[in-house]
Amino acid sequence: MSEVRVLGVAGSLRKASFNRALLRAAIKLAPEGMAITPHDLDAVPLYNADVEAQGDPPGVAAFKDAIRGADAVLFVTPEYNHGVPGVMKNAVDWASRPARSSPLDHKPLGVIGASPGMTGTARSQSQLRQAFVFTNSYCMPQPEILVARAQDKFDANGNLTDETTKQFLQQYLVAFKAWALRFKPA
Amino acid sequence: MSEVRVLGVAGSLRKASFNRALLRAAIKLAPEGMAITPHDLDAVPLYNADVEAQGDPPGVAAFKDAIRGADAVLFVTPEYNHGVPGVMKNAVDWASRPARSSPLDHKPLGVIGASPGMTGTARSQSQLRQAFVFTNSYCMPQPEILVARAQDKFDANGNLTDETTKQFLQQYLVAFKAWALRFKPA
Amino acid sequence: MSEVRVLGVAGSLRKASFNRALLRAAIKLAPEGMAITPHDLDAVPLYNADVEAQGDPPGVAAFKDAIRGADAVLFVTPEYNHGVPGVMKNAVDWASRPARSSPLDHKPLGVIGASPGMTGTARSQSQLRQAFVFTNSYCMPQPEILVARAQDKFDANGNLTDETTKQFLQQYLVAFKAWALRFKPA
Amino acid sequence: MSEVRVLGVAGSLRKASFNRALLRAAIKLAPEGMAITPHDLDAVPLYNADVEAQGDPPGVAAFKDAIRGADAVLFVTPEYNHGVPGVMKNAVDWASRPARSSPLDHKPLGVIGASPGMTGTARSQSQLRQAFVFTNSYCMPQPEILVARAQDKFDANGNLTDETTKQFLQQYLVAFKAWALRFKPA
Repeated sequence: MSEVRVLGVAGSLRKASFNRALLRAAIKLAPEGMAITPHDLDAVPLYNADVEAQGDPPGVAAFKDAIRGADAVLFVTPEYNHGVPGVMKNAVDWASRPARSSPLDHKPLGVIGASPGMTGTARSQSQLRQAFVFTNSYCMPQPEILVARAQDKFDANGNLTDETTKQFLQQYLVAFKAWALRFKPA
Repeated sequence: MSEVRVLGVAGSLRKASFNRALLRAAIKLAPEGMAITPHDLDAVPLYNADVEAQGDPPGVAAFKDAIRGADAVLFVTPEYNHGVPGVMKNAVDWASRPARSSPLDHKPLGVIGASPGMTGTARSQSQLRQAFVFTNSYCMPQPEILVARAQDKFDANGNLTDETTKQFLQQYLVAFKAWALRFKPA
Repeated sequence: MSEVRVLGVAGSLRKASFNRALLRAAIKLAPEGMAITPHDLDAVPLYNADVEAQGDPPGVAAFKDAIRGADAVLFVTPEYNHGVPGVMKNAVDWASRPARSSPLDHKPLGVIGASPGMTGTARSQSQLRQAFVFTNSYCMPQPEILVARAQDKFDANGNLTDETTKQFLQQYLVAFKAWALRFKPA
Repeated sequence: MSEVRVLGVAGSLRKASFNRALLRAAIKLAPEGMAITPHDLDAVPLYNADVEAQGDPPGVAAFKDAIRGADAVLFVTPEYNHGVPGVMKNAVDWASRPARSSPLDHKPLGVIGASPGMTGTARSQSQLRQAFVFTNSYCMPQPEILVARAQDKFDANGNLTDETTKQFLQQYLVAFKAWALRFKPA
């Protein structure tokens, strides 16, 4: 049984998404004692407080349960329009509820991302971290993974082929395991 | 016929939303020569590039057409988790496509917002403006409208009752009319 | 001897600054086992890499030593122009050097602030936290202290007189003590 | 006489700064009818409201006069610690005063930047634009210039040698001239 159970959340619904591919690479490269389980956002609808008042929709309840059941969550985010994609932020908006007792409260988190452009989701990651201040989550500050020009680093099947990125990702995951353990209740 | 046709977009799906209420107040307080038409985001699904590749869904096409048909767009945004709600950002993500020829390109925009908390959507507005840099839109810098403690400023039916806020909103709309006209093709 | 030694840094050079006053209030309200020592930024010059290459100026060396000697640092920031004041960011820029072995690396931090406006330094605090991601510091996410309309909460001598703010600040400092201890080497 | 007089401000005090070099390149590549005059920040001290109350120091008065005398200002910013350098923000803090009648009010602005890292000052530019919302300045949204891996694009004497960057910069300056003219009083 794994010491550290991580939920992996890619912020794109596109099948061939670079961020889904980056999450798959992380799953493969996870160090001993860490298991990363992916969670799709397809079943998380647009946030509506009137709907929430009737009870969380099944896809939302499943997402929140998955966060609760994990020792840590790894968010793998694209960048759209210089910021967090609506799809990703929407999932965080649901998971943040209710304030002060959400599944994100006190949870160790990681934020990484990939984009075809040259800035590698820098601005999106900054905004996502800003959300996790409000949710009272413990977001690992360093190292950071910003995969720029993603089309040059994955093959046509979505396999991470760039050796430098692989090494950074491995180092990241080792650090993230230590980060998650630091906050794990004894 | 109005000199300036403004599309109004509230970033909440909740029926009794303060931001829908703020938009209704803006519609009523619009100066002569400016007409604000609201556009609901209910029909805009979560962004999915695979879906987009098959053609914009009807709700997205209607939203983009509405932006194209307006001289300016007024975004009325809540703040969730220290940032733009996923629902609002998701609509912008759709409208931003395709890059460089989106309906938001060269469009004069306004950003205002209301929240029950004391910071009045300050962080959300900053993030939304950041998106509109990428879309090459013309976002009016000043004045700003940040409605804090919204529950004290609207009555139970969602009517804006706070006189100071009404005056600020009226001044805002006069400035926004001039801003829109500045960019209107002759 | 105090269990937790905190360095307090107010980001304003003005003598009657609300943020200096907020720091003084924090010093008085610190819980048992926590001692907060203020450090003025008057002696920290504008950052210049050519100067740095000749060795840190005395005011910078003293600031960096003070950070190294503390278990945690409390940054008390004004907001200018929707962001971190240059004076505060400049001090962080010096302290961040050299990258990866700066005194801010692995340091537990707190960020609070006061402003005469209604948003209580919300945007400034977000930006300052963004800097501390790069410096690999451990910034406490919650609770947050945003003192809005500061002129109503301090008396003419700069004493914090607002009881609600005092209570929030006391609770903040208790949480900050626990946060600092969590990261203190055994 | 030039149609458009631009003040150029590099946000670094280092003599061999990439951003000073980028500003020099912009001066050379300015299109016909646009003249860019550089303004050093060496004489702008750390902001202190007590000092300001006695009157702007000479270096500040000169900076504000230079802004007033220009049709537009081009800010060329480094990125430190995921944000605007204190040196740059400090200059903006002085220039922003007094609120609502500062020399930045209604002024057309451009923001570009260079950094040795791969993100090309993306986060710094976003923060600087956020400041210019408060100052009621007209910041050109697109195009954007983010010079990443600057050490590969300038020679040892600080001359811009990368042809692609030169072309982007030329196109940027043509667009910026049109932007400045759009806001120039008749």
